[in-house]
Amino acid sequence: MEVQVMENIFDENDRTADRLRALFDDKHVFVINLLGSPGSGKTSLLEKTLGALSKKFSVAVIEGDLFTARDAARIDRLNVPVIQINTVGGCHLDAPMIEKAIGSLDLNALDILIIENVGNLVCPASFDLGETIRAVVLSITEGDDKPSKYPIIFKDASVVALNKIDLLEYTNFDLDSARNDLKSINPAVEIIETSCTKGIGLEQWCRWLENKYSSGREPV
Amino acid sequence: MEVQVMENIFDENDRTADRLRALFDDKHVFVINLLGSPGSGKTSLLEKTLGALSKKFSVAVIEGDLFTARDAARIDRLNVPVIQINTVGGCHLDAPMIEKAIGSLDLNALDILIIENVGNLVCPASFDLGETIRAVVLSITEGDDKPSKYPIIFKDASVVALNKIDLLEYTNFDLDSARNDLKSINPAVEIIETSCTKGIGLEQWCRWLENKYSSGREPV
Repeated sequence: MEVQVMENIFDENDRTADRLRALFDDKHVFVINLLGSPGSGKTSLLEKTLGALSKKFSVAVIEGDLFTARDAARIDRLNVPVIQINTVGGCHLDAPMIEKAIGSLDLNALDILIIENVGNLVCPASFDLGETIRAVVLSITEGDDKPSKYPIIFKDASVVALNKIDLLEYTNFDLDSARNDLKSINPAVEIIETSCTKGIGLEQWCRWLENKYSSGREPV
Repeated sequence: MEVQVMENIFDENDRTADRLRALFDDKHVFVINLLGSPGSGKTSLLEKTLGALSKKFSVAVIEGDLFTARDAARIDRLNVPVIQINTVGGCHLDAPMIEKAIGSLDLNALDILIIENVGNLVCPASFDLGETIRAVVLSITEGDDKPSKYPIIFKDASVVALNKIDLLEYTNFDLDSARNDLKSINPAVEIIETSCTKGIGLEQWCRWLENKYSSGREPV
């Protein structure tokens, strides 16, 4: 009974996500679903990303949070259009929420849409938002065992930021072990070491996103 | 429709949790539901806690994970009885899972049962496991905004460990701000600063748990 209901929820979500993906393709909007644990540094990395990309491209942000608009306020300070979705305790964003939110965006004028999901390494992985790519932020303070303990979210990621890399020396995080686990779960994944406080890897991160965006716009 | 189904799920969970709580009371078993984000340090703090408490009390552990038995293997090395629940992608433990798991424990011989939930700051908060108390581990590397962004899980906590406190100087975590937010969400909460790698606050943490356990055993 419960399983049946969950299947219905996923079915409906996937239908909406397919519709969104077709719309984003049609409007040439590159959509990034940004995922990670609470406190992995998604918003900080997003701020740095916007600092670089919004100089060249028209970028907008959708912020997913349980209750507050704290993260949206941070993005708003960068003069980037931002829409806040409060899930009121809900553990993930879903495609119908995105479909409703984009009503206030001019997709024709938009190049890149970044959706910062609710901080959660489990549930958001099961909900397609119609995104072009998934980007997962894993803080090295979370431990090197997280890819193997939470494989679903890493399996479909195009890129993983190993964030807070400046704290590496104060932890027992084993970079080789984490990289090997990530590659065994998802051989095609790009792994980039970043630190928002020390400015490490941010150029590489932004260049990778930019290349991905550009390659998607090339005629096939 | 969806809401109705969720209500039914919660109702069934709560009925099972009430049954479990009565059973634990009857058997004088003190049950701790240990919650926190992926990588907050739940398992490390649990290891330290077991090192101290298992010398004085009969303790058992239930480990909740999506797939692996990595954490259970860590507990097993301490010669503490441990039961692994794999949720196979599920984002939280629920009371029926606990009811099934305790079938293999001798509750008559047990003083303390510690349940390490799935790493998730959202969903586990909504599922009562029949526990005596909730303990939440928040790593200071997650940021001081987490209590206000994820209030549900902190609202019903008896104690919060501000873990990885040894990394405080390398972060912009504002202790006063986090403490104020926690106290405004949950005025009665006990807040203990801990570091498993540097051995900070562990004595205080274990003493607090022990006092809580002892006070529960005093005749009313």
